[in-house]
Amino acid sequence: MITSQTEDAVDATLTLRTYRLVISYLGTRYRGWQRQANGHSVQAEIEKALERLWGRPVTLHGSGRTDTGVHARGQVAHFRVAGRFRDGITLRRALNANLPDDVRIMKAGKVADDFHARFSAVGKEYLYRVRAADVHDPLELGRVWYIPRRLDVVRMNQASAFLVGSHDFSAFASNPGYARETMVRTLFQARWIQRGTLYSFRIRGDGFLYRMVRNVVGALIRVGDGRLEVDGFKELLESRQRSNAPPTAPPQGLCLMKVFYH
Amino acid sequence: MITSQTEDAVDATLTLRTYRLVISYLGTRYRGWQRQANGHSVQAEIEKALERLWGRPVTLHGSGRTDTGVHARGQVAHFRVAGRFRDGITLRRALNANLPDDVRIMKAGKVADDFHARFSAVGKEYLYRVRAADVHDPLELGRVWYIPRRLDVVRMNQASAFLVGSHDFSAFASNPGYARETMVRTLFQARWIQRGTLYSFRIRGDGFLYRMVRNVVGALIRVGDGRLEVDGFKELLESRQRSNAPPTAPPQGLCLMKVFYH
Repeated sequence: MITSQTEDAVDATLTLRTYRLVISYLGTRYRGWQRQANGHSVQAEIEKALERLWGRPVTLHGSGRTDTGVHARGQVAHFRVAGRFRDGITLRRALNANLPDDVRIMKAGKVADDFHARFSAVGKEYLYRVRAADVHDPLELGRVWYIPRRLDVVRMNQASAFLVGSHDFSAFASNPGYARETMVRTLFQARWIQRGTLYSFRIRGDGFLYRMVRNVVGALIRVGDGRLEVDGFKELLESRQRSNAPPTAPPQGLCLMKVFYH
Repeated sequence: MITSQTEDAVDATLTLRTYRLVISYLGTRYRGWQRQANGHSVQAEIEKALERLWGRPVTLHGSGRTDTGVHARGQVAHFRVAGRFRDGITLRRALNANLPDDVRIMKAGKVADDFHARFSAVGKEYLYRVRAADVHDPLELGRVWYIPRRLDVVRMNQASAFLVGSHDFSAFASNPGYARETMVRTLFQARWIQRGTLYSFRIRGDGFLYRMVRNVVGALIRVGDGRLEVDGFKELLESRQRSNAPPTAPPQGLCLMKVFYH
């Protein structure tokens, strides 16, 4: 019987389990999601907390990167680890107790071993928020892009409609030279909603190129303030030339809201 | 004619004018409104900007203090200054160009010379926000009081109703010993609104004692989570004893919304 118990203990230690995390973070203090040689990253903070819990290094795999200053309300990541099993609520609480305030595990739990946060993802949703007002609200600092101009939401939505469907989005990719794969992505939704002086852009698709949301927003704001025509936006998309495009919108307005899986 | 022009210039320099400012600020980085020997204050930041514009020290008078970490969307202040006249929009822009991002002048303009931001005020409105959820949202850090418990908004409003009207609020004043004047204040409104897990408390009155709003909220949250009975809250108010009261709510949930004048 003693032998059998020992074997059980050995088995438990060797069994790899896959856990999935849903993560919210305020991006302000971080050089993005991805672990960096220099500078804070969200990934490294969570890996540190995981190592404290399991007593050995654990590699965390995110659904994708977010840039410096970009926020998340629904980043998804997974890790595989041997050793003590922890149920979802216990794991969530233990991780949050070991994380800085600006990174929170919203959900945690065991998933099937073939789950991969990046390769299993079938889509993502982002929210970009713009405040158009004479004076910015200090309580929104680092959470919106403040623009001291009037915006025309009807024009912005006319232009946004061209984005829906499958397109080569090279005109909105910040690293066209690096990409060896296709630049075609399929967007399911791209729509602005205006409430008072707050303009919220919700964009959903099967995938996004590097800085694509911020590049799209940078161009749509030019449509909104009249510096770019609606047809000019369509021509820009069809040109597939990043060099023709308006500048990238700043990071603090962007938030990764959801990652979709089957 | 030359003499006359010189006299005009002298007159313009000697005429004192009174200006009124409406100010929003994120309190996180400041040791409150009031100028301090050590540490940042909102008042000192604005006085520095005023000195840059007029080339001499200018004293700014606020409607009242706010504590370290407390925010404002409608703080009011005035100053009297001789020298160059500036219209409201020009003054607002010039001040904002000389202020840190977390302090913004929302409105500026000349007012009657008998206006005094503190002594002319006839009332104030504060907002206190509480998030009651299992996990706090990192994007709300420093803007709400996060409480990992369920709250009963009906009970909280039953207790809040006792506050409306004229009462001796000694039980909710953090400095009862210092006060030589009356501890009676008149509240016109004290009401919680719940939207999802966000609980917003709007309180309006002719004046507030030191830390009164945060002390009231600290007690009302105990009513909401069941640790204090509604009748117990009433007894606490009637006891006029601060020593009986639950702890002060933290500053980051509080925002000075409006100052009222006739």
